[in-house]
Amino acid sequence: MVQDVLMRDEMAERLRALAATHQPEYTEAEVHRLLDLLPNRDVAETLLELSPQELADLVAQLSDETLAELVAELEPIEGASLLLRLTRVRAADVLEEMDPDDAADMVQAVGAVDERAAEDILTEMEPLEGEEVRGLLAYPDDSAGGIMTTRVVTVRPDTTAAEALTSVRRLAEEERTETIYYLYVTGTDRRLVGVLSLRELVLSPPTRAVSGVMRRTFATVPPAADQEAVARLLTEKHLLALPVVDAEGRLLGIVTNDDVADILQEEATEDIQHLGGSQPLEVPYPRASVWLLARKRMGWLLLLFAAEAYTGSVLRAFEDELQAVVALTFFIPLLIGTGGNIGSQVTTTVIRAQALGEVRFGDLFRILWKELRVALLLATAMFGATYLRAWTLDQPVDVRLTVSLSVVLIVIWAGTVGSILPLVLRRLRVDPAVVSAPFITTLVDGTGLIIYFEVARRLLKL
Amino acid sequence: MVQDVLMRDEMAERLRALAATHQPEYTEAEVHRLLDLLPNRDVAETLLELSPQELADLVAQLSDETLAELVAELEPIEGASLLLRLTRVRAADVLEEMDPDDAADMVQAVGAVDERAAEDILTEMEPLEGEEVRGLLAYPDDSAGGIMTTRVVTVRPDTTAAEALTSVRRLAEEERTETIYYLYVTGTDRRLVGVLSLRELVLSPPTRAVSGVMRRTFATVPPAADQEAVARLLTEKHLLALPVVDAEGRLLGIVTNDDVADILQEEATEDIQHLGGSQPLEVPYPRASVWLLARKRMGWLLLLFAAEAYTGSVLRAFEDELQAVVALTFFIPLLIGTGGNIGSQVTTTVIRAQALGEVRFGDLFRILWKELRVALLLATAMFGATYLRAWTLDQPVDVRLTVSLSVVLIVIWAGTVGSILPLVLRRLRVDPAVVSAPFITTLVDGTGLIIYFEVARRLLKL
Repeated sequence: MVQDVLMRDEMAERLRALAATHQPEYTEAEVHRLLDLLPNRDVAETLLELSPQELADLVAQLSDETLAELVAELEPIEGASLLLRLTRVRAADVLEEMDPDDAADMVQAVGAVDERAAEDILTEMEPLEGEEVRGLLAYPDDSAGGIMTTRVVTVRPDTTAAEALTSVRRLAEEERTETIYYLYVTGTDRRLVGVLSLRELVLSPPTRAVSGVMRRTFATVPPAADQEAVARLLTEKHLLALPVVDAEGRLLGIVTNDDVADILQEEATEDIQHLGGSQPLEVPYPRASVWLLARKRMGWLLLLFAAEAYTGSVLRAFEDELQAVVALTFFIPLLIGTGGNIGSQVTTTVIRAQALGEVRFGDLFRILWKELRVALLLATAMFGATYLRAWTLDQPVDVRLTVSLSVVLIVIWAGTVGSILPLVLRRLRVDPAVVSAPFITTLVDGTGLIIYFEVARRLLKL
Repeated sequence: MVQDVLMRDEMAERLRALAATHQPEYTEAEVHRLLDLLPNRDVAETLLELSPQELADLVAQLSDETLAELVAELEPIEGASLLLRLTRVRAADVLEEMDPDDAADMVQAVGAVDERAAEDILTEMEPLEGEEVRGLLAYPDDSAGGIMTTRVVTVRPDTTAAEALTSVRRLAEEERTETIYYLYVTGTDRRLVGVLSLRELVLSPPTRAVSGVMRRTFATVPPAADQEAVARLLTEKHLLALPVVDAEGRLLGIVTNDDVADILQEEATEDIQHLGGSQPLEVPYPRASVWLLARKRMGWLLLLFAAEAYTGSVLRAFEDELQAVVALTFFIPLLIGTGGNIGSQVTTTVIRAQALGEVRFGDLFRILWKELRVALLLATAMFGATYLRAWTLDQPVDVRLTVSLSVVLIVIWAGTVGSILPLVLRRLRVDPAVVSAPFITTLVDGTGLIIYFEVARRLLKL
């Protein structure tokens, strides 16, 4: 694969060498060659490995367009740190070359570090571009309004196909549109009345009015729609772009599908990090500092510790039983471990299904009924395995039965909690981040111990 | 959002009502209206909820095109079960209307159930379409060759822009191309010499030869390339399609970006289910049967049980210590739980970074060094928390020190194992599925106990 042509370390060396040449034309051409051969993001990220001086030398030789292309590949907080090292005028020039939605993300990230700088950069931008970016800043950056672009081809219903094609050509030449694959037909007051693909336009007779070829039913999203929902809609309907309209049906912009893969990846990464029991990192792992990693993990770790701490109280409450039959201790990790494993299996599956929109709160009882039957099947197998293990640890029949009956109850309990909790918590609008595999495991640990010792107390007559 | 216009149950009712009308034209129009308003996949999946008779009534009224559009939305094994309920001739007609890559997936899934049926259907297809599908079946279905389409616009280098545009128009009209957004310029022997986007074509002077406008450097993939790598390359280079070429540089087909989101979602779902400690389900959760869920979870559950079982032996080996200081038991779940949480946090982060191509085996020592420092920070906090907890459980100073020193060692150990293991196992070409959060947790449980009791034996002089 092409990625392997050049390793990251070599690439940094190449960029350093280019920075030292002070030959803008050669440097520009070489950077474009790298961008042709390698994932654009890799090239952009290598910039972050250069020293301040090397970076300054390199960017001085690059055109605004090329620099914009590179900055757009970075996470906003990284792009911002790069923009802040440029003069305000240069930063403004670079932002003008970016898609307005990407530029808005960068300005927002700059603002988070240095509000004054963001304002200065916006002021330095050309009035038209600056206004466009300011308009987008009004929407949250993970909403349809925050990721849409306002650079879109609009035509009137009575425009002919030939005129429309000329208009597409002109806007594309002037780079005043992000996609040429859809044309949006607007009536009075910028109200969206139809959508037309370039494909349909190319196929229609030149003199036909677009109102005769456009589609009149089409999906739209409000500016406040969540970016993940928008990405899924784009995917499900196999669209290259989706119009964003306000409550009056006026076209505000479009979300293009080049953002979809990034959004879905980003959301999957967040979900996975949540499920693993830490806060999402928000930057790629290799560039997360030790301090950031510790910070993102610490909160949950302490919270889980506090929740788990009550297992100590549970065990102390059963101190006499433990003293009487020390062998009960042997099975503690095994029982709570198995409960945790089941909980983790069920929870991750249900949370993913929730994220994919496959299940919702209304499915609660259907899911519970299904998971109960699954748990019964698994519990049967675990009963046998546990009985066997107790026997190989030379335990008498009553201890064997205590342990294997406990595992049955714990498996059913873990399956139930693991399937219901994600649905209930989301319904209560609790951040879904709360339900991680470690969270379920912790919850099952303490309750599992109570089940175990209650069973022991009865069967062993303690 | 439009999805909420109609709930799934209502949709099934609508389809049932349509099936009962026996008015093909009305039914066809209504199904298209549903497809305009709702995610196509939802409409298709509703078909699976109909009874055999209802389904037969409905499909009898639908055109081959519409049915093909619906079947293409389903997972192959579900599409296959639907195709198997049609006559062989009808199934062949439907497959002819699908993109060859999707048709090949369906035929393969049909073949897995009934090899004879797959062969019969292929024989019933038009020779040209049948051959196309047979050609694609030669590649694994998760490789570039398996997901590519052979319906692509190719032109000769000396074709003029105007001629090329005419050619695009004709192929699009005849539905002989899946995308019109790229043209592939081939020389002798179908060797790929250049690529041209529709945008560039529309912008070039009509009389110019395409060899004068085409790009000569472009990314390609071999047919054996993994689908996930191809999806990432499409995303990273912001391409709408990627050509698949053989070792001699001959164009075999293209992978279009409408598959990207599905592939990335599918891979993320698999990763998440792996991480949760079960085998991937391969079908959406709501349609996974009780038996399938149990089967996918059982294997790992028993394996993890077997691995965890040795904690019993560890504890029995320390029976005397436990007898002497029963209070040591109070902290078992807390210590191994904390170790498991750290392991889960680190492992999920590293595995996700691996999946995104952010880290590889060569980064082992860099990662280890980073994670060691993170673990030290976390261990310091956990030392304090554990000391406090032991104190609130009325333990003497030497027990407090034993427990909190153990937690420090366990945190460092879990952080190390959790970061190294995913990298090492992948290097050894062990299925990455092996490294799940429950797996790490289990591993840390037993080893954590040994650490704990060794510390206790020394500090408490047992």
